[in-house]
Amino acid sequence: MFRPQIKVLDCTIRDGGLANDSHFELQTVRAVYEACCQAHIDYVELGYRNSKEMFDPKEFGPWRFCDEKDLRAATDGIENPGTRISVMMDAHKSDPNDIIPADESVVDTIRIATYVKDIDKAIAIENVAHERGYETTINVMAISTESDWELDPALEQVEKEAHVVACYVVDSFGALYSEQVHYLVQKYQRIVPSCEVGVHMHNNQQLAFANTIEGIIKNANFVDGTIYGLGRAAGNCPMELLLGFLKNPKFDLRPVLDCVVETIRPLQKELEWGYMVPYMITGILNQHPRAAMACLKTDQRDEYREFYNKMLELAE
Amino acid sequence: MFRPQIKVLDCTIRDGGLANDSHFELQTVRAVYEACCQAHIDYVELGYRNSKEMFDPKEFGPWRFCDEKDLRAATDGIENPGTRISVMMDAHKSDPNDIIPADESVVDTIRIATYVKDIDKAIAIENVAHERGYETTINVMAISTESDWELDPALEQVEKEAHVVACYVVDSFGALYSEQVHYLVQKYQRIVPSCEVGVHMHNNQQLAFANTIEGIIKNANFVDGTIYGLGRAAGNCPMELLLGFLKNPKFDLRPVLDCVVETIRPLQKELEWGYMVPYMITGILNQHPRAAMACLKTDQRDEYREFYNKMLELAE
Repeated sequence: MFRPQIKVLDCTIRDGGLANDSHFELQTVRAVYEACCQAHIDYVELGYRNSKEMFDPKEFGPWRFCDEKDLRAATDGIENPGTRISVMMDAHKSDPNDIIPADESVVDTIRIATYVKDIDKAIAIENVAHERGYETTINVMAISTESDWELDPALEQVEKEAHVVACYVVDSFGALYSEQVHYLVQKYQRIVPSCEVGVHMHNNQQLAFANTIEGIIKNANFVDGTIYGLGRAAGNCPMELLLGFLKNPKFDLRPVLDCVVETIRPLQKELEWGYMVPYMITGILNQHPRAAMACLKTDQRDEYREFYNKMLELAE
Repeated sequence: MFRPQIKVLDCTIRDGGLANDSHFELQTVRAVYEACCQAHIDYVELGYRNSKEMFDPKEFGPWRFCDEKDLRAATDGIENPGTRISVMMDAHKSDPNDIIPADESVVDTIRIATYVKDIDKAIAIENVAHERGYETTINVMAISTESDWELDPALEQVEKEAHVVACYVVDSFGALYSEQVHYLVQKYQRIVPSCEVGVHMHNNQQLAFANTIEGIIKNANFVDGTIYGLGRAAGNCPMELLLGFLKNPKFDLRPVLDCVVETIRPLQKELEWGYMVPYMITGILNQHPRAAMACLKTDQRDEYREFYNKMLELAE
């Protein structure tokens, strides 16, 4: 009953790092890594490898840069049954010179996140990463705002010039509905047939898990989740739901449940994520959640009507 | 772009009453009713009309019985642009003698909730309600546990013997995935072609809104929601998401947003509902949430692994 091609990637630390400038304690990263290994999740993404020229290391935590020494500190001594380690590089915020040869790195896979407009940068980084021995993916962000006439040639370029194992539909704004997920996954399969399609969904409209299933139904085989949905703003597809849905007997839900209680829920003392009305409003209006995040930091955080009216005006 | 046949029903007070034995303050019920009227929601369900022989009025609040005087107190003086008022009767817990003639009642619509095994009782109540002048629906609960060979004849009986405007798929356990929603909605259309199909979804797996959309895609035209998802256990399809999705310009989201802040979120001081891991576990195992609700009242409420193991044992 299960599809062995499906690969599950946990990006709790990477996506969660957008909520706290990647300032996780080492023990948190180790606990997430260990839970993913014990659960037999296929991939665990431990952060960004972005440029220290573009992000100030005094301001951002170690998981924004994923120096090898930090990755080793996060993983050393933890039994790994085959969970691959990935980092993400933003096409417009990272430096290919930060990619050391794969055989000197604990990293297996480099995922390059890009807007359509930066696809040339993404492919340039991908080419370096591939040449230096990494498995690669390209993840097209903010997909709900891209028009076909810009997206299609970008995907054609990925097919021709990159060597990725997967190309991702990334619903950064949590704005997609199921029929749009179907449309995009099928488009990717048509234009980028030499790799798998991936889906990375956000939960602004409580649709992250549902849209991930819809991707799977249309044969997307790389699927992202985070433990208890941790992530910026409304968060992500909850890993515990995803593992509960998938029928592959190799997965074990229990270590993820333990991690929710012992590691992730305690973070709620400092971090706020999950479904909230301002995130819903940016989601239904297909807007970046940044206005909602800003609103939630003010005294007007509960003035939903005013926020809705303001966002409607901006969308006009 | 919108389908005018779609009717939205708010059951905040009715379904929420399962979480607090229907002990809402009058001002809460009035606020929800007013928000639904102002938002131009098609129906608002103000509670159960269940039997005082089977529920002790000393234990349960007025919205378990919906006496006419209480319904009038909840609605008098509030401008209503055409929002119809419904109550729900449980087939196995209510008395047809409690149905007064429709022209003496503020109630427009009586929805009969039933398990498949009680379909005869449901139809008997429906027949009385219809005869006394009400619009009626039959809502088949716990649908995820019903086999085709029991459900199909029950639906055939509804088609032959009842006069309902809609027959509902009720996912009491929050266990359905989209393909099952499609299957059930299409089955209802085939077997009960003389009425609309309704969908009532629960949020154990964060799929209540998604599954409601899937019902709509397959032409279910009666859809339930509750404000901010209020409801027993993991709660329901959030009304604010549903109105954000539907394109009918008659709906106004703003009164619902106000009601979230002013009326529903303050209830969180006393009531706990929404996505929690124990509810997820009963959802993925297609079990009633009662074990999760019981667990959450104990000191072991955070022992997810133990709860999961226990539920797996029970399911064997």
